[in-house]
Amino acid sequence: MTKQTDISGSGSKSSGGNLRIDGQALWSDLMETARFGATAKGGIKRLTLTDEDRQVRDWFARTCESLGCTITFDSMGNLFARRPGQDNTLPPITMGSHLDTQPTGGKFDGILGVIGGLSVLRALHASGYTTRHPIELINWTNEEGARFTPPMMCSGVFAGVFTEQDVLDKRDRAGIRFGDELEAIGYRGSEPCGQHPITAYFELHIEQGPILEVEDKTIGIVAGVQGMRWYEVTVRGKDAHAGSTPMPMRHDALLASARMIEAISDIAIAHAPASVGTVGLIENRPNSNNVVPGETFFTVDIRNPDDAIVATMEGEFRKRFAAIAEASGVTLDIVPIWDAPAVHFSPACIDMVTEAATEAGYSARRIVSGPGHDAAYLASIAPTAMIFVPCKDGLSHNEEESITEPDAEAGANVLLRAVLKADASFSTAA
Amino acid sequence: MTKQTDISGSGSKSSGGNLRIDGQALWSDLMETARFGATAKGGIKRLTLTDEDRQVRDWFARTCESLGCTITFDSMGNLFARRPGQDNTLPPITMGSHLDTQPTGGKFDGILGVIGGLSVLRALHASGYTTRHPIELINWTNEEGARFTPPMMCSGVFAGVFTEQDVLDKRDRAGIRFGDELEAIGYRGSEPCGQHPITAYFELHIEQGPILEVEDKTIGIVAGVQGMRWYEVTVRGKDAHAGSTPMPMRHDALLASARMIEAISDIAIAHAPASVGTVGLIENRPNSNNVVPGETFFTVDIRNPDDAIVATMEGEFRKRFAAIAEASGVTLDIVPIWDAPAVHFSPACIDMVTEAATEAGYSARRIVSGPGHDAAYLASIAPTAMIFVPCKDGLSHNEEESITEPDAEAGANVLLRAVLKADASFSTAA
Repeated sequence: MTKQTDISGSGSKSSGGNLRIDGQALWSDLMETARFGATAKGGIKRLTLTDEDRQVRDWFARTCESLGCTITFDSMGNLFARRPGQDNTLPPITMGSHLDTQPTGGKFDGILGVIGGLSVLRALHASGYTTRHPIELINWTNEEGARFTPPMMCSGVFAGVFTEQDVLDKRDRAGIRFGDELEAIGYRGSEPCGQHPITAYFELHIEQGPILEVEDKTIGIVAGVQGMRWYEVTVRGKDAHAGSTPMPMRHDALLASARMIEAISDIAIAHAPASVGTVGLIENRPNSNNVVPGETFFTVDIRNPDDAIVATMEGEFRKRFAAIAEASGVTLDIVPIWDAPAVHFSPACIDMVTEAATEAGYSARRIVSGPGHDAAYLASIAPTAMIFVPCKDGLSHNEEESITEPDAEAGANVLLRAVLKADASFSTAA
Repeated sequence: MTKQTDISGSGSKSSGGNLRIDGQALWSDLMETARFGATAKGGIKRLTLTDEDRQVRDWFARTCESLGCTITFDSMGNLFARRPGQDNTLPPITMGSHLDTQPTGGKFDGILGVIGGLSVLRALHASGYTTRHPIELINWTNEEGARFTPPMMCSGVFAGVFTEQDVLDKRDRAGIRFGDELEAIGYRGSEPCGQHPITAYFELHIEQGPILEVEDKTIGIVAGVQGMRWYEVTVRGKDAHAGSTPMPMRHDALLASARMIEAISDIAIAHAPASVGTVGLIENRPNSNNVVPGETFFTVDIRNPDDAIVATMEGEFRKRFAAIAEASGVTLDIVPIWDAPAVHFSPACIDMVTEAATEAGYSARRIVSGPGHDAAYLASIAPTAMIFVPCKDGLSHNEEESITEPDAEAGANVLLRAVLKADASFSTAA
């Protein structure tokens, strides 16, 4: 899918334009980190703040130090690998993403952005090229939000969206506290999260959708992120014996929830094609073959690039849920847990990514991100853009998640060039 | 709800007809056993073969020994308290039920039958009356089937419905083996399960339904048990990112399961009023807010007094499930795990219960049991009948399960009289 590239003539020595990514080293780093939390089906289970997370962080720190970088981490465990520049009083040009995964995650979601950034540091180190700004590679804590919700938690604190204390006190479904786990893996730093000025932020990521593959494009120039909202829903009915409770006398929390799960799908489809609606997590109590369920808990996720449509979808499902609850003889509790408005990235950074892709000779198209990313929060505090590469069948949050080695290299080359353009242009401005 | 009773004239010394239950002792035994696995909401969580199960078994054994009984248990952990009779070569007249509960169970389901039988032993012990047959009180292992399915597991082995080895190898949802847990609590006996001849079996139980209460009857004379079938269903779709996977490209296992859960309810209602259909247990994978569910597991429970209607309901839901799976782009695996045909109790034993209720002066009516009971299996190897008493709002498998002290005493008085009638009539026959 990657077109042949000749960058020999492009750029100039002073802009580091002749630097290029070592695709083999990039791929072998991806495969090496995939060992931490590797699953039988070839995926990764590396939930945030677990021992597997600690292991990959340790590997990341060692490897970056071997490339002449200094490692620091802040009070949320966000991890910074800093390569000095000519003027170290300038805030750094940054790259980053996350090394945590879903319970049945793949080898590339988030990881490509960190390891791709590492390949940029490798290229700079190998060439001995010194940028004007310091360059920093960042691993954000708990992007996935699978163990502790909401997602993008610690880039959120960094950007001032969440408070540090709120996040430290979050608990997973087992009741374990975020702050305790962060201490336990040894990555709670002394630098207060957010007091770390940056000049610009670039994030390389797999698309996690089907568009680039379907259109045979190598690079997605990401213009922004769609709006999304999350909710926790608790439905309360009444436990009763499954054998002797007549159907009309039941208050079946799971049956009512089933109707609500269908309503979410119906509403998303009614706002086609850009809307999605998902119930991804459900817990049923007492959860016994022989008992009419008395209480059910589930999550709702709705998204659209237009915040107004997201708001309309919320209004619609609240109305549908209330009607279902009444008809089913159950009570309903809906708690909004996350509201991320649509994000529009920096035109300047988008232009740098566009030029980088063009100069490198890769096929590219503009795209709006379906998933949320740390970049969505960074965009509120610094010029930000993202680079997408295709993933097989648009499949992600899945152990079968797959990308090609040439596409990984292409994405990292665009990241490298965009970082060097930012180093040149922002320092001129500075 | 209990009518005043005068049994002074009824029966004869030789038949022990002037014996009566000590209602206060019965109630205090019920409350004492309720401490083993007591929940904050006033219910009991005493899953089979747990430490709480061991504790209540130990209490049962000690208490029965203090009433002059001998304790034995068989290779399935079924527990027998034997009171000698005049002719100990005769197989015993037996009473029993179970002391295990649901995860959020009440204080009476099963327990009343065991403790009510204990109150019969108390009455015999207090009077010094010696029956012709030995009298045995039985606590059956794992009636609930909440931890290890199917229910009525060890009365099933006793009756030859299941093999001992199949049951020993059953595993709970955590993968723990039945046989290992039975050994661990110290109740795996040397007597091979099933090699324990009995003359007759009577089981006292709460109705677990609303009928007796609605009709203001104290005693249910149970003519039999409705037919029921259980299934385990696995729906397989494809994990995918909740933000970037367009609705038409999804293979959402939970959404398909939601449609199937509604289908089960629709089918039961279509066969009103005697049919019930329940999905009581569901597990969703990977069960993360942010992931379209790739696999869902749930159970199906369908019942009707007429086996032909149960078969029709199975045919209907298999057809509906197949259509839903195809329309939802998922695959379907349906495993039948339990098939209990309708049971008809012994006319002789039903008559004894009827006469006992009449002589004791309690209001009574014939009834068919909705739930399954150990008696349903015992009926295949010995003359068997059951006695029901009302429970508040028909509520069971619920921590709020509730009965009155007079109703408990009434049920035990009928059990006592029925046992004495069986002792007289069956020994004449013997």
